[in-house]
Amino acid sequence: MDKIVKTQFVTFDRELKLQSGARFGPFTLAYETYGELNEDRSNVILILHALSGDAHVAGRHSANDTKPGWWDQAVGPGKAFDTDKYFVLCSNVIGGCQGSTGPSSNNPATGNPYGLSFPVVTVTDMVEAQRLLLDHLGIEKVLCVTGGSMGGMQALQWTVSYPDRVKSAIILASTARVSAQSIALNEVARQAIYADPNWKKGDYYGSERPDAGLAVARMIGHITYLSETSMRAKFGRHLQEREHYGYEFATEFRVESYLKHQGLTFTKRFDANTFLYITKAIDYFDLSYGQPDLAHAFRNVSSKFLVVSYSSDWLYPPEQSEELVRALLQNGVDATYVEIQSDYGHDAFLLELDRLATLTRDFLSRVNRGTTKHAKLPKPA
Amino acid sequence: MDKIVKTQFVTFDRELKLQSGARFGPFTLAYETYGELNEDRSNVILILHALSGDAHVAGRHSANDTKPGWWDQAVGPGKAFDTDKYFVLCSNVIGGCQGSTGPSSNNPATGNPYGLSFPVVTVTDMVEAQRLLLDHLGIEKVLCVTGGSMGGMQALQWTVSYPDRVKSAIILASTARVSAQSIALNEVARQAIYADPNWKKGDYYGSERPDAGLAVARMIGHITYLSETSMRAKFGRHLQEREHYGYEFATEFRVESYLKHQGLTFTKRFDANTFLYITKAIDYFDLSYGQPDLAHAFRNVSSKFLVVSYSSDWLYPPEQSEELVRALLQNGVDATYVEIQSDYGHDAFLLELDRLATLTRDFLSRVNRGTTKHAKLPKPA
Repeated sequence: MDKIVKTQFVTFDRELKLQSGARFGPFTLAYETYGELNEDRSNVILILHALSGDAHVAGRHSANDTKPGWWDQAVGPGKAFDTDKYFVLCSNVIGGCQGSTGPSSNNPATGNPYGLSFPVVTVTDMVEAQRLLLDHLGIEKVLCVTGGSMGGMQALQWTVSYPDRVKSAIILASTARVSAQSIALNEVARQAIYADPNWKKGDYYGSERPDAGLAVARMIGHITYLSETSMRAKFGRHLQEREHYGYEFATEFRVESYLKHQGLTFTKRFDANTFLYITKAIDYFDLSYGQPDLAHAFRNVSSKFLVVSYSSDWLYPPEQSEELVRALLQNGVDATYVEIQSDYGHDAFLLELDRLATLTRDFLSRVNRGTTKHAKLPKPA
Repeated sequence: MDKIVKTQFVTFDRELKLQSGARFGPFTLAYETYGELNEDRSNVILILHALSGDAHVAGRHSANDTKPGWWDQAVGPGKAFDTDKYFVLCSNVIGGCQGSTGPSSNNPATGNPYGLSFPVVTVTDMVEAQRLLLDHLGIEKVLCVTGGSMGGMQALQWTVSYPDRVKSAIILASTARVSAQSIALNEVARQAIYADPNWKKGDYYGSERPDAGLAVARMIGHITYLSETSMRAKFGRHLQEREHYGYEFATEFRVESYLKHQGLTFTKRFDANTFLYITKAIDYFDLSYGQPDLAHAFRNVSSKFLVVSYSSDWLYPPEQSEELVRALLQNGVDATYVEIQSDYGHDAFLLELDRLATLTRDFLSRVNRGTTKHAKLPKPA
């Protein structure tokens, strides 16, 4: 039986200075922990979630829960992030809708939900909020920060914002700067939400929600999480519960049914405004912003890195991880790079867990021992 | 100065038997012609358009037209399809909104636009309507059918439906069976239209149009027409008319501005219901449907083929053209395959025209001479 975990909450009765220059507070973070913090507090693994994730990484909240946390197969005794050895911590990002303060939270100044009066936050701001959580928990330095996709962006930002507080980082299916194609996909998804008349410029709380727009946004996302190959293997041109074309607009192909189901399910657990804020934070993510080049961004970094890409990931393709690793190596950083051959596309970071477990076990024990290894330079682009 | 062309119309006062089994008529086709039909009517090139195309391939409708036809750089004297030699014909597809009968046309039985009472049409039905146009024009056999994307699907269907009437086919950036990923992208675009309350199950004529939904649908399309590389080159992370992040939801990145412009422009010239019907026709396109395998579909084909794919096209990637060519070669068909190296993605069939002109000139003169050449088998997948 899975371990029963509880989400915890901490409210910071102070202001965060945001990257935009705005100040924001008070605010709450939802977080969960797994495993035991050791005496010298040196066994902390900070896991950072992607767009639609939350603090609930693993285990179940009650014995009746139908599903465990979103990375349950990677976090637990003997797993990639072994909770027999490590103290795992994960918090819902600021701007989120699963326990941390976000646009759907009540603004104490008005008594009403923030909606679009919530400030635009960035990955830097997410990290700043998490830093206050670590301070609150009395954790000075983490053994490892890790995450996939936007989780990887936060982990990268940690190594840049707080180089002395991060011993190592594992970056999965991510990028150091979000591409034009990714921005385009995020913008179209946002436009689908804006186009929903129930969205009402974000002021929909207490009335009908912009579920139709949010569902379309999520469907776009799902296409980018799979690869052409995995879609072919999973759905092909199979029809849904019929043998011949119906010549009608109803759902006919299995892939249509899958996407509609994903879109609908998402609206039941996610807030449309949070979708807007988080995709915007992703679009802004560019470690080279305001720097002469990407390598310069890592000039003070002292963490060891394991960077993992997945061959069929077209959202944050291997070339983007290679660019990241080259920038790290230009600074003499201890960085290991692995491209995992996988047909699962971007979702591979959630699915290729045996391979990941082998890599993280080796990497974390090496980080623990404090030995260094010379990284292999990937071939230039 | 460009040649001034006029769109012509022909109304067929009869019924089309559709692939679905339904019967539909009377119906009108809009078409344009360029160049002169020779005495024995043996110099006809039938050009077939893609999703958003129309009969207006080249030239201008008046001296004041700001833009020429959609493939003006490929069709004209001395161009890839040389109108000094060939008689070029192009018609708007049935189901379209640019002169041919489609869901926005008036149903003579009711006096009101068809809306969703228009029958679902397929690529086979588009070809059947064009066949009646050829009969009407007294053209027994065409020298070449050609088109990119959905135009290529129609050209393929021509070679299968009417093997004796097609001497050769040039298939660009297309596929013999539409993939799960393409169906997924089309379905999400349709969902964006369905989600627009102005759509009213297709019954919006005479009231506000579902422009917001159609714009989102078009934006999704545009992302698939470009490659990651061309988007990086064209937009990168450049901001639109500003130097620093604004930390707001307004358009900031140049790529966002481009997509919004494309979406908006499209709503001014295109009908949302036609978008639904044509994407559905694309989804249904699968020459292996009802056949033991794809090769079997080509068993009666006698045309010569030139199949062209573009290296960075991820909508109908080169592997899909290779699958097509292998199926042709299994039937001993005279097929030449070229993968053009291009960063322009799917749009390359509209842009890489110098390379195309070289290929079509050689191919068409070979077809005209009636010589055969042994095709090179692409490497197995």
